[in-house]
Amino acid sequence: MKKIATLAVLAAAASASYAQSSVTLFGIADATVQVGRGSVDNNVGLGSGGLSTSRIGFRGVEDLGGGLKAGFWLEAGYTLNNGNGQNSNALAFTRRSTVSLMGDSWGEIRLGRDFTAPYNNLYDAFGDNGVGNILETQDLGITYGLQTRTSNAVSYFTPKTLGGFFGQVQYYRNGRDASPAANRDQFGNGYGVRVGYENGPVSVGVAYGETDFNDAGLGAKVDTKNINFGGSYDFGVAKLLVSVGQDKGEALGESAKTRLYTVGTTVPVGAGLIRASWTRASEKDSEVRADKFALGYVHNLSKRTALYTTFAYLKNKDASSLALNGSVTGAGDSSKGLDIGLRHAF
Amino acid sequence: MKKIATLAVLAAAASASYAQSSVTLFGIADATVQVGRGSVDNNVGLGSGGLSTSRIGFRGVEDLGGGLKAGFWLEAGYTLNNGNGQNSNALAFTRRSTVSLMGDSWGEIRLGRDFTAPYNNLYDAFGDNGVGNILETQDLGITYGLQTRTSNAVSYFTPKTLGGFFGQVQYYRNGRDASPAANRDQFGNGYGVRVGYENGPVSVGVAYGETDFNDAGLGAKVDTKNINFGGSYDFGVAKLLVSVGQDKGEALGESAKTRLYTVGTTVPVGAGLIRASWTRASEKDSEVRADKFALGYVHNLSKRTALYTTFAYLKNKDASSLALNGSVTGAGDSSKGLDIGLRHAF
Amino acid sequence: MKKIATLAVLAAAASASYAQSSVTLFGIADATVQVGRGSVDNNVGLGSGGLSTSRIGFRGVEDLGGGLKAGFWLEAGYTLNNGNGQNSNALAFTRRSTVSLMGDSWGEIRLGRDFTAPYNNLYDAFGDNGVGNILETQDLGITYGLQTRTSNAVSYFTPKTLGGFFGQVQYYRNGRDASPAANRDQFGNGYGVRVGYENGPVSVGVAYGETDFNDAGLGAKVDTKNINFGGSYDFGVAKLLVSVGQDKGEALGESAKTRLYTVGTTVPVGAGLIRASWTRASEKDSEVRADKFALGYVHNLSKRTALYTTFAYLKNKDASSLALNGSVTGAGDSSKGLDIGLRHAF
Repeated sequence: MKKIATLAVLAAAASASYAQSSVTLFGIADATVQVGRGSVDNNVGLGSGGLSTSRIGFRGVEDLGGGLKAGFWLEAGYTLNNGNGQNSNALAFTRRSTVSLMGDSWGEIRLGRDFTAPYNNLYDAFGDNGVGNILETQDLGITYGLQTRTSNAVSYFTPKTLGGFFGQVQYYRNGRDASPAANRDQFGNGYGVRVGYENGPVSVGVAYGETDFNDAGLGAKVDTKNINFGGSYDFGVAKLLVSVGQDKGEALGESAKTRLYTVGTTVPVGAGLIRASWTRASEKDSEVRADKFALGYVHNLSKRTALYTTFAYLKNKDASSLALNGSVTGAGDSSKGLDIGLRHAF
Repeated sequence: MKKIATLAVLAAAASASYAQSSVTLFGIADATVQVGRGSVDNNVGLGSGGLSTSRIGFRGVEDLGGGLKAGFWLEAGYTLNNGNGQNSNALAFTRRSTVSLMGDSWGEIRLGRDFTAPYNNLYDAFGDNGVGNILETQDLGITYGLQTRTSNAVSYFTPKTLGGFFGQVQYYRNGRDASPAANRDQFGNGYGVRVGYENGPVSVGVAYGETDFNDAGLGAKVDTKNINFGGSYDFGVAKLLVSVGQDKGEALGESAKTRLYTVGTTVPVGAGLIRASWTRASEKDSEVRADKFALGYVHNLSKRTALYTTFAYLKNKDASSLALNGSVTGAGDSSKGLDIGLRHAF
Repeated sequence: MKKIATLAVLAAAASASYAQSSVTLFGIADATVQVGRGSVDNNVGLGSGGLSTSRIGFRGVEDLGGGLKAGFWLEAGYTLNNGNGQNSNALAFTRRSTVSLMGDSWGEIRLGRDFTAPYNNLYDAFGDNGVGNILETQDLGITYGLQTRTSNAVSYFTPKTLGGFFGQVQYYRNGRDASPAANRDQFGNGYGVRVGYENGPVSVGVAYGETDFNDAGLGAKVDTKNINFGGSYDFGVAKLLVSVGQDKGEALGESAKTRLYTVGTTVPVGAGLIRASWTRASEKDSEVRADKFALGYVHNLSKRTALYTTFAYLKNKDASSLALNGSVTGAGDSSKGLDIGLRHAF
């Protein structure tokens, strides 16, 4: 929800509207100089999406009368530094591809590819982008962590008439058509639920999802269960954001759990925004974990254009060897990363 | 012609025009819940394009004065359920990619990738989309059936000043550049012709085409010959559509023929449209054939947005084992399929 | 620079603008009948981009006030004859993908994928397109010639306030991320510089660049050095264009050099433009070389639409076996090529 709301503000109406309807061309062009330091290898290069993922999309809403609306949303990611699309280097609408029917009084039915409900519930000071992004728990070694998106989803969203309460249920069947099977983004069958409350300065939510994968290597079905809680409160001088989540994978009578904790803040300063967060990803029943501390500043040249910089320090423990911005670091070692970039929204 | 005409009505002028010219962004977002039943395996899932193939495109016409116009048409297909493009999962203008020079008095020269002339001549109550689509004769096992599109085509279309008579001739040379050779959509060299008459409630046409393929497996050239007749008549309370076609493949002195028959009707009911058809695909000189009975209803919420459902029953005979909506059925067995979907045009 | 300036004139503002900003959809649809003759094999077919490379793109500039602007440019190439994108048949913004910050007084910082500085400095009567294009020196057999584009570039362009003098410096680091390594378009690390003078009828420039590649086959680093000089003068009745360049590759203590010479002219005749050029590519310290003579005519039906034809004759010497328009010719033999096409810009 937050991502979409942010996007809606950023996106500019680049096309003429007609009747009660509109089609909007929108996008992000975001390039960042990336510096990464690790105990094994360093890296310097140009990257994409340090503040917002580079993308281009087309979306529209048609007013059908009587409080009924139809809408579509087609969004393709690309990497600005080399112009490649995000889907095997090609452009495709794999960030979002949906068609919706919406009723003012009853909510929205949405069909297609979209964020999973638990991913929608993450509250992160860095919007899960750039060197300061949330440590994805699957990076710690768990095979099936929280997935960002799912194809083949049928979702229901509650209307905005519930006094601030909102909910989403989502069901998807991907297992049968998964191709290529090796693609981590190919889901199995599953569902997700999210409920929350958003009113004035407060936003809180809880989400749960289950997905069954066929793990060819393991020769067995893996049942993954993702749960997370989160919220934000805007004190005016600063906004506080908190997320706590757990990913569990069960197969052949055994299970593994990974947990994610993050506390962040954003502080407006004139035309700028200071951002800071601490994030921990840890395996349950082991000492394997990683802590990331990130500090950044976004200087808005306009509503659409910003210069930004983010510094992050990551501390691994035990077998964890996560590294930042393309650097390589040893198990238990630390890594540092710096982004300096320019983001333009259109 | 019909497809294009339909599209032109559906497509919304999403861009500002300038001078005598215009560039239009257009597309379809169509998602359908697909249910398939067969004697071997069933399937339930989300699909794309049950009413109209999901697509996005850009096209425009420039008035050059003196009855002369220039135009272009770039159209990419995608599958809404997962956001992938239709060309190896990537977006590409492989539905149509043409540039044209048009004269009010002499017609149109069109260069690029487009429908084949015989495909343009199909009259189908379901527009060759969704579970009720025409049984493609090549599905019965003939290697080279009627191809939907060709690249590298030079086409001539007659002007609209012939009192309802129209014609198209088309020549293409793909054999040399075909890559990858395994792609069924890669043509050899060939040509196509279509002539017809369209006036008020009546539309009739006949088309013929020949294409030479190099069949690596066979180690020989295959000469395919496609012919079809068809027409529609709008009685007001209902429209009747009929198509009869034959695909013939000749190689090494032998030949195989497959035939397609379809009779369909569309009946407007208020804001809705009932659609029904019977289609038969059969191999000549054998008992192999399939019959499909399809019944559907389209409920238009606006000119651009529709809810729809289609049910189809397919009966195989002999070695034929065609199945609907991802189900699997045995040779000679039947299959059932159901689409329930939402189509939004922009 | 020239390419971009040309494009800016051709591109039509297809989208509504808002505030001080605009987003523009632009493109080229160019199809050409290609005839090629060689001593080994001839070819006839439909091709793309005989006058201007077929492309589609989105670009925009936002006025940030105080002489500051932000801009983006996303441009994808495609082949009109079959609708495929130019990046492994898929659409991707691999022609140009940049985000910029621009100051009226200090110039432009541009990040992303773009032309190399030496490529920007080519002066060619045929704009390096179609059968009359500049013989690329790497075609003669040198492994690492002048590259058209680079990803991961940080470029600085001088402002337009220097009395006609202009300059560009460019730095890129691709070596680390190159994938797939086999892609010739994947650069190593390097830089480029271009300085010149453009005022009224005169334009002159000199450019130099160095790039280091890791040559897996050679098992060594190859250091390439590209230099070129060029200029054009518009006499009114005709424009004269001249380019001279050298590409040098050094590895394991040895080096190879290839040189490019071209002299061309464009002559306006009413609504048309006659174009002619002689181009020579030759290996230093050997007799291997190729000479191309090209003559063409562009008939403008409007500012955006043109019919064109180009004839080219190529003479190989020694081991050179370059051939035109898909024909095949033997070492030392000649080749002939003809384009007859239609270009529409939108």
